[in-house]
Amino acid sequence: MVIVMKSKAPKEEIERIKKKMESLGCQVQLTEGENQSILGLIGDTRKIDPSQIQANEHVEKVLRVQHPFKLASRMFHPEDTIVKVGNQQIGGGNIVVMAGPCAVESEEQLMTIARIVKEHGAHMLRGGAFKPRTSPYSFQGLGEEGLKLLRKAKEETGMPIVTEVMCLETFDVVAEYTDILQIGARNMQNFALLKKAGKSKIPVLLKRGLSATIEEFLMSAEYIMSEGNPNVILCERGIRTFETYTRNTLDLSAIPVIKEVSHLPIIVDPSHATGKWAMVEPLSRAAIAVGADGLIIEVHHQPELALSDGAQSLKPEKFGKLMHAVKRIAALV
Amino acid sequence: MVIVMKSKAPKEEIERIKKKMESLGCQVQLTEGENQSILGLIGDTRKIDPSQIQANEHVEKVLRVQHPFKLASRMFHPEDTIVKVGNQQIGGGNIVVMAGPCAVESEEQLMTIARIVKEHGAHMLRGGAFKPRTSPYSFQGLGEEGLKLLRKAKEETGMPIVTEVMCLETFDVVAEYTDILQIGARNMQNFALLKKAGKSKIPVLLKRGLSATIEEFLMSAEYIMSEGNPNVILCERGIRTFETYTRNTLDLSAIPVIKEVSHLPIIVDPSHATGKWAMVEPLSRAAIAVGADGLIIEVHHQPELALSDGAQSLKPEKFGKLMHAVKRIAALV
Amino acid sequence: MVIVMKSKAPKEEIERIKKKMESLGCQVQLTEGENQSILGLIGDTRKIDPSQIQANEHVEKVLRVQHPFKLASRMFHPEDTIVKVGNQQIGGGNIVVMAGPCAVESEEQLMTIARIVKEHGAHMLRGGAFKPRTSPYSFQGLGEEGLKLLRKAKEETGMPIVTEVMCLETFDVVAEYTDILQIGARNMQNFALLKKAGKSKIPVLLKRGLSATIEEFLMSAEYIMSEGNPNVILCERGIRTFETYTRNTLDLSAIPVIKEVSHLPIIVDPSHATGKWAMVEPLSRAAIAVGADGLIIEVHHQPELALSDGAQSLKPEKFGKLMHAVKRIAALV
Amino acid sequence: MVIVMKSKAPKEEIERIKKKMESLGCQVQLTEGENQSILGLIGDTRKIDPSQIQANEHVEKVLRVQHPFKLASRMFHPEDTIVKVGNQQIGGGNIVVMAGPCAVESEEQLMTIARIVKEHGAHMLRGGAFKPRTSPYSFQGLGEEGLKLLRKAKEETGMPIVTEVMCLETFDVVAEYTDILQIGARNMQNFALLKKAGKSKIPVLLKRGLSATIEEFLMSAEYIMSEGNPNVILCERGIRTFETYTRNTLDLSAIPVIKEVSHLPIIVDPSHATGKWAMVEPLSRAAIAVGADGLIIEVHHQPELALSDGAQSLKPEKFGKLMHAVKRIAALV
Repeated sequence: MVIVMKSKAPKEEIERIKKKMESLGCQVQLTEGENQSILGLIGDTRKIDPSQIQANEHVEKVLRVQHPFKLASRMFHPEDTIVKVGNQQIGGGNIVVMAGPCAVESEEQLMTIARIVKEHGAHMLRGGAFKPRTSPYSFQGLGEEGLKLLRKAKEETGMPIVTEVMCLETFDVVAEYTDILQIGARNMQNFALLKKAGKSKIPVLLKRGLSATIEEFLMSAEYIMSEGNPNVILCERGIRTFETYTRNTLDLSAIPVIKEVSHLPIIVDPSHATGKWAMVEPLSRAAIAVGADGLIIEVHHQPELALSDGAQSLKPEKFGKLMHAVKRIAALV
Repeated sequence: MVIVMKSKAPKEEIERIKKKMESLGCQVQLTEGENQSILGLIGDTRKIDPSQIQANEHVEKVLRVQHPFKLASRMFHPEDTIVKVGNQQIGGGNIVVMAGPCAVESEEQLMTIARIVKEHGAHMLRGGAFKPRTSPYSFQGLGEEGLKLLRKAKEETGMPIVTEVMCLETFDVVAEYTDILQIGARNMQNFALLKKAGKSKIPVLLKRGLSATIEEFLMSAEYIMSEGNPNVILCERGIRTFETYTRNTLDLSAIPVIKEVSHLPIIVDPSHATGKWAMVEPLSRAAIAVGADGLIIEVHHQPELALSDGAQSLKPEKFGKLMHAVKRIAALV
Repeated sequence: MVIVMKSKAPKEEIERIKKKMESLGCQVQLTEGENQSILGLIGDTRKIDPSQIQANEHVEKVLRVQHPFKLASRMFHPEDTIVKVGNQQIGGGNIVVMAGPCAVESEEQLMTIARIVKEHGAHMLRGGAFKPRTSPYSFQGLGEEGLKLLRKAKEETGMPIVTEVMCLETFDVVAEYTDILQIGARNMQNFALLKKAGKSKIPVLLKRGLSATIEEFLMSAEYIMSEGNPNVILCERGIRTFETYTRNTLDLSAIPVIKEVSHLPIIVDPSHATGKWAMVEPLSRAAIAVGADGLIIEVHHQPELALSDGAQSLKPEKFGKLMHAVKRIAALV
Repeated sequence: MVIVMKSKAPKEEIERIKKKMESLGCQVQLTEGENQSILGLIGDTRKIDPSQIQANEHVEKVLRVQHPFKLASRMFHPEDTIVKVGNQQIGGGNIVVMAGPCAVESEEQLMTIARIVKEHGAHMLRGGAFKPRTSPYSFQGLGEEGLKLLRKAKEETGMPIVTEVMCLETFDVVAEYTDILQIGARNMQNFALLKKAGKSKIPVLLKRGLSATIEEFLMSAEYIMSEGNPNVILCERGIRTFETYTRNTLDLSAIPVIKEVSHLPIIVDPSHATGKWAMVEPLSRAAIAVGADGLIIEVHHQPELALSDGAQSLKPEKFGKLMHAVKRIAALV
């Protein structure tokens, strides 16, 4: 951490801050210039609150040097984390594709789609039973009934299940059925939910919030890990920018960044990122080419009848084409 | 709602969509051009999912004409909503100032600050007992102990309390103590929490999410209202943009927009928006000048010792100056 | 400037960088920690290119401590700059209102509007003769004919003129007629144009680019000033964010920030920021309340016939109301 | 175009607007609902200014249905445009790599790098002679001397040249030397420069502005094309978002979008997008995988001595590795 003092900061004040930082266990080196003094802090500064230092009226600014996360950091855990789900492995060079409908709508719908994605080579089945919707008037999911259908589809196809957990109240029921607990973008900083997931043993698929920085994203992973659950799979699903042609802007740069600073696996959700089925395949290719560990894709056999997100769901043959393209690129990377 | 067909959409497909929309209770008017056809829908389109229509490959785009919210809309409720809290009124031309520390830290700290803000004319006391923090290693609040201290401060000063409720698990305990339930920016789309708050009778202070559009903000208010609680106070607290000089970018344009489309009161939080105490007073003046119904301000007698957000907390005398400036502008607007 | 070394940077490499920085005239202080070393640089680091240092593979990151601008900085010029235009003064506590049509369309149109804004108390006349338009098919302005009409309006009303200069080719003709050279948002980093304006003696109204940080904005002012023209008036006119309800997001926080770090006057353009006439008055009030030195406002007596930007132009009586409100707030601030 | 009237718009006003739109050559279909009326316009609406209609106080909003560009649109030019430069073809399935230093610094530097990139398979040589720099104190390029060196490198290596043209004043000298005129991100809406480039016969590489929407980007291409130059190559180079880990956010979604709505070729600049050499290769792979027509890459044999953008320049062997990876992916797509 670096503390930049204002140009006219009195000597005593600088000395006072230096002493305080030392009392918190840091080494402090003072660099004094004509106009400005800088304090360089070395040691574990994760527990120092920059805001508290910045409150001092003689402080110009406080610059962080270290990442604020530790368990999620590659610095302290150089090798890739591999999350095991059933007989699947996520991370460490494996490419995993999770596919299925946005929402579970009926037994017929789910079973039809589950068979299709299985046949085309998907490794896991996605499907929402509890759906976060912007409007209270939209379809909110089948609830536990949907979870039961997911279990049925798992029994038939052998694919592990990934489904969203939206709140503490329904946490246990979701946890009873699912193989991966999905925490959605809107809940990325629902800290109570993160802690609860951290106390569980089930792997967590954590989606990046719409306006979350990469650092905040990893801090949310840190929340889960600090409670004892190391099995976190990250998911980039687009950030909010000024561009409105696509629903969000898929930030593929985040993949190599996260691979550099963290050991956690990261997959990409091109369906939610773009909101348009026609863009799902090219962005899936790009995601694998950039180094992602997998994809999560929405597939529907009748998207124009889907109860949610029809516009971004791939029809079966298009999903087949995508799987083919992805495999060929994966073989190269 | 307007459905724009692709340039080569077959006639039968256009006719089919027209019929389907009519079956959903809408009047549909077809405008056919040389290159493009447009379907104009009239009626209550709030329950039609644009994504489902967009899934049709012959559809170019779907444009919404109506706002998707109803209870929060001024169209169906032309007069301003006034929320009553104790003997205070929020909305309808009253200016309400909520002030206090970011977090309740100790009895001495809270009582000291409560007395100061009361003396300077604050109407309500703010203070966090359960704190959402980006880092799991940061101070997370005193919990119920903090709520008890808030009650004590209320008893002494007579000021109603506003404090954050973070999750379903601690909802009831917070609800027992507080006069206004604050829902933070990160929880603006925590739909389970919104529904729970909607079932309560306690007024809700709903903060705008960091990357929430005005429409999404009002949809979250709609969630609360659709469960039966009409007492929603909105709070603009800055949106996330590329500018890093201030923590967030306070969107004061949102105030006149929301006053136009909604009847709900809206206040402004310049402390969180800027993250810098020196900017709180000028932006408070601007907030009142633009037409906000009040302010929520962080005050601390020793900001450099604050356990959270010290950098944005006003010292007592600065808060006094702010109150003076705000009152004079309020008298004009 | 602070250079953070990677955790395993070899000692010789650290020493080599230290020497290089010293050879560039900086004092360098090394802080060595267990995991990480930090180099603190003191002295004039404005000419050191952080990118060059960052190219070293042992460097983690380079953090700037000083602002990169000097002439525009309040540190070296503590008192407010006051720009004189005719008998008007901009900056130093004066409130100046520039008003007029978006584009000069005809003699009748310009003279009508000029008289109206003069009557309501405007200090200067705005109007575009050369118009930057997103579409090549839109009205591009009357050119020199428009400048002649502006001169005529100035002769009759006595108001100095502010009009946009778009390129080097038409620079001299615009400079011949105008009292203030307006450089538009899209040209904020048209460095050739900035240098040309810097060589002129005419005051420059420099608009903030749609996605310019405050620092970049001031660096563009620095370009003008470094060529010898100290008469720069800044103009905040909204930045581009995800919010689409308003055309841009007016960043009023930028006003106190710029007042703190720079001595240059700054005015606000609420017409372009919002794109909606109904929001111009409330945001004008807020702009003055937050500390801006003035406003630039679009006024049109027949906005529904305007050849550009009709939607954001105020009708005469609404402008009168705005002037009244602004004067009362200005008296307080 | 669709005009949505306010809920209480008087009938005569609706009729008046309908007549006016018809007088501008559009067919107009009125859809009347209980609360709201909608006017659907069919015909060439590119020359209608939505702002003018929106100025009417009875108009709620104006929604565009057609893209505002025509020459750049695939609707009127279904087959891919192929731009020929020397014996290279850009667009239509060819993958072109332009590589070289950020800035031409000296004969030795340029010749060294030119030979290296040629040897590794680059098709064209990039290098800046006139450099747009945020700071007036940074290296601004060698000017015509740099152009002469580029010509020399072209003569030796046979690679066509791409270099930036910054302003009207130096347009002719740059045009004399270069094979492709590069228009930088900051000049994307420098309309005078676009028009000048449109009057030239030299192919133009148009970079997307930092905060330009895809539509604005294509409108800038339309400016060039409407002056008679059809040889426009687009370049995605990152947009500005809240994320600060990378310099900009590379918007790879823009590639399939532009391929859908336009016939122009588009390449990707991962060097400027990320600002970090370590991310250039993965994003280059992704760019080709998503369907881009090529890349523009910064290479420097001594990046830590580069006079600009050293941090994002690839060393020779890394560039070789990139070329290898890109070719393999290109073979698949």
